[in-house]
Amino acid sequence: MGVRMIKPRLYRGMRDIEPAEMEFQEIVLAKVQELFKKFGFLPLKTPAIEYLDILTGKYGEESEKLFYNLAYGDGHTLALRYDLTVPLARYIAMHTHELPNIFKRYQIQQVWRAERAQPRQGRFREFLQCDVDIIGSNSLVSDAEIIAISIECLEALGFKNYSVKLNHRVLLKGLLNEAGVHQENEMVVCRILDKIDKIGMDKVKAQLEKDLLEPGQIKKLFTFFDSKADNEQKLTNLENMKLNKDAQKGIEDLKTILGHLNSFNISQDKIEFDPALARGLDYYTGSIFETVLLDHPHIGSLTGGGRYDNLIGVFIGRDIPACGTTVGLDRIVTALSEMKRLDKKIPSNKVLVTILDENYASYSIKLASKMRKEGITVDLFPEPASIRYQLSYADKMNIEFVLLIGENEIKNKMIRLKNMKTGEQTDYPEDLIIKEIKKLTDKKENGKIENAKTP
Amino acid sequence: MGVRMIKPRLYRGMRDIEPAEMEFQEIVLAKVQELFKKFGFLPLKTPAIEYLDILTGKYGEESEKLFYNLAYGDGHTLALRYDLTVPLARYIAMHTHELPNIFKRYQIQQVWRAERAQPRQGRFREFLQCDVDIIGSNSLVSDAEIIAISIECLEALGFKNYSVKLNHRVLLKGLLNEAGVHQENEMVVCRILDKIDKIGMDKVKAQLEKDLLEPGQIKKLFTFFDSKADNEQKLTNLENMKLNKDAQKGIEDLKTILGHLNSFNISQDKIEFDPALARGLDYYTGSIFETVLLDHPHIGSLTGGGRYDNLIGVFIGRDIPACGTTVGLDRIVTALSEMKRLDKKIPSNKVLVTILDENYASYSIKLASKMRKEGITVDLFPEPASIRYQLSYADKMNIEFVLLIGENEIKNKMIRLKNMKTGEQTDYPEDLIIKEIKKLTDKKENGKIENAKTP
Repeated sequence: MGVRMIKPRLYRGMRDIEPAEMEFQEIVLAKVQELFKKFGFLPLKTPAIEYLDILTGKYGEESEKLFYNLAYGDGHTLALRYDLTVPLARYIAMHTHELPNIFKRYQIQQVWRAERAQPRQGRFREFLQCDVDIIGSNSLVSDAEIIAISIECLEALGFKNYSVKLNHRVLLKGLLNEAGVHQENEMVVCRILDKIDKIGMDKVKAQLEKDLLEPGQIKKLFTFFDSKADNEQKLTNLENMKLNKDAQKGIEDLKTILGHLNSFNISQDKIEFDPALARGLDYYTGSIFETVLLDHPHIGSLTGGGRYDNLIGVFIGRDIPACGTTVGLDRIVTALSEMKRLDKKIPSNKVLVTILDENYASYSIKLASKMRKEGITVDLFPEPASIRYQLSYADKMNIEFVLLIGENEIKNKMIRLKNMKTGEQTDYPEDLIIKEIKKLTDKKENGKIENAKTP
Repeated sequence: MGVRMIKPRLYRGMRDIEPAEMEFQEIVLAKVQELFKKFGFLPLKTPAIEYLDILTGKYGEESEKLFYNLAYGDGHTLALRYDLTVPLARYIAMHTHELPNIFKRYQIQQVWRAERAQPRQGRFREFLQCDVDIIGSNSLVSDAEIIAISIECLEALGFKNYSVKLNHRVLLKGLLNEAGVHQENEMVVCRILDKIDKIGMDKVKAQLEKDLLEPGQIKKLFTFFDSKADNEQKLTNLENMKLNKDAQKGIEDLKTILGHLNSFNISQDKIEFDPALARGLDYYTGSIFETVLLDHPHIGSLTGGGRYDNLIGVFIGRDIPACGTTVGLDRIVTALSEMKRLDKKIPSNKVLVTILDENYASYSIKLASKMRKEGITVDLFPEPASIRYQLSYADKMNIEFVLLIGENEIKNKMIRLKNMKTGEQTDYPEDLIIKEIKKLTDKKENGKIENAKTP
């Protein structure tokens, strides 16, 4: 054991998730997972550590600076996963022969990015992603189903005032081309456009003007973006401009996706076609989409995804179409927390069994064991201590029911039940106490998301 | 996007957890988690990345060679967590003032060790640990409760033929001292003794003889280990030898723990006091224990833990007592798999809604959405394809119920239900089909662990 004292501390951007938040996260996760299953998705997990060359060349230069490389193996050939999409593509490529032609999977795991951490905005260097992807189909039904599941997710968690921004990489490519952006600059421009929500339109224009585009080009490009009409009108307006083939292909796809979303019973006013939406990652090839909270825009997108038909091909030399989205769990928890919809109190459907004296420890242990066997959640205080000390523990732990077992109780074969909320104390015969506790705790519920009010 | 093709592959010791195994893992995890909660433990998560000096000096030299360091930050000052105990100690040290005096937490997360991977024996370099720990109490009720929860875990998962090996570091220290082992060699000897199960008694003796101990010392040491009596007799035998204070203290603690285990309703024949049990990690200071499957000894210990009263002190300069165990989920799954208790088939309480023609896609999507709203798990085939193609998908996915929706069906307002198991096809009116499917799928259960038979 080390002799020197080590200051206990966390690496910047890392955090512990404490019990109250964990219990809430568990509830959110259960809801999300239930939904994914209901849509027929199958669970998958991939390892945290991947070969570096599996991850490189898919996200874009700026993103790939944020990899955590491992100082192990031959000259740092390993890295922590940056998202769940590239590992999925690697997995698909390794298993094409065994997998069904259509593979719908969900995956809930941490990812790591050496970003500037902004803990207050729910941005950490380690965060939990919940991904759903449909592999193997070109059909735009997939794109619509992925968007539908994003929306169902938010609805299930009680969000009301959100919007799905929808665009298409090929349309955007066409528009950039119309504005005279060189093909080799497309991704650079996309990555700058992706910052509109973060840094605002003016700064984006300034960044585009610096080195990349002429003022005239920027002006032209933004005429495509500026429309205020509804989705259908915006698409028709663009269509009427008789733009290049890429633009036309994108418009057609988006119209089909909007049609399918209608069949998925998604209200059209939740969807906003935004021709300036770019998404930061390189690998998208078709529809792109993200959801934002209209009242909490600073939190950023809660979900985001799109179609990436060429990614798996990098590993097997022939393309397999794919489409998916990420649900950002940490941002969702941040949002629910800001909306005061988190019950931060530790749930109290729990009983504390005390030990008042070493001599009665055995009695308390036996009682706790019996109660647990009956399905009751029992916290057994592990050591003999004063009533005062154990009650203050119950208080801190938000435990409502405490069983006091001391000399008197054992002599009289009675057990004292103290209700911490009311202060009431009642003695029950040994043989009735379990029944009574069962009745009391069954009424209690675990922590939950409070009912959605329109925020 | 990269042009060069990258061979899709996994770094040695890493693995993907595929849907069938994931669904099983989810069931096992749910059982374990439910149990931890019933015992009153609270959930916690800590980050994967810790400062290197937080982890160093706690596990022992051999273990610490297995850290995955990160090539980020100033000269590799970061590493992936090696277990969940040291991060817990770091967490406790950072929050002593807010936490209750007794803190019972569970934690279910991956850990990473650059070990020689033995995938067939369920040994990977990334694996899932489920930890329960009681912080803040010296009372041996904690030690007994931790052992009790290990046993309840195994019982809940259907294991019958297992044994809990129990020992005490201070007793072992006393015995080593009686055999003339120098204090500075104690941990080295412990780490060698820890290999008895892996490499056998003879090789352990050979390793001890090399550099460390005289033949006479080894002989003396192993006279303490060789007893075949029951626990109480073994302890009494040692007691009667009137050994040093450390040995006496250990014996006394073990007797108390066995007494408490009795109160926890743990059958004494599940516990085997094994004075040679050493546990490999440096940080233990009191009781140590692990569970092994008597029929599958090659899998190694399924759970393992002990008391570590000095670990938190490294971070805050005053000791806080603690005791806990790890439940090794991957080994448990390996064991259940070897015992053929895993139903590897993907559960089939799922309905496939087909799309037979582009024109009816909208109808199929609407039906799928309605059914999901009714709580039915629906896999929507994402693209128009031949009946044959979609049925072969259903077959591969082990989906029992398929809805066929084509021109005829829509004309006649009937939907065809095909049962993949019986081959039967029945037409149902649109307005009845959801009811019928609900009836059929409600009967189905999700995958489960088969009932325990004494293996």
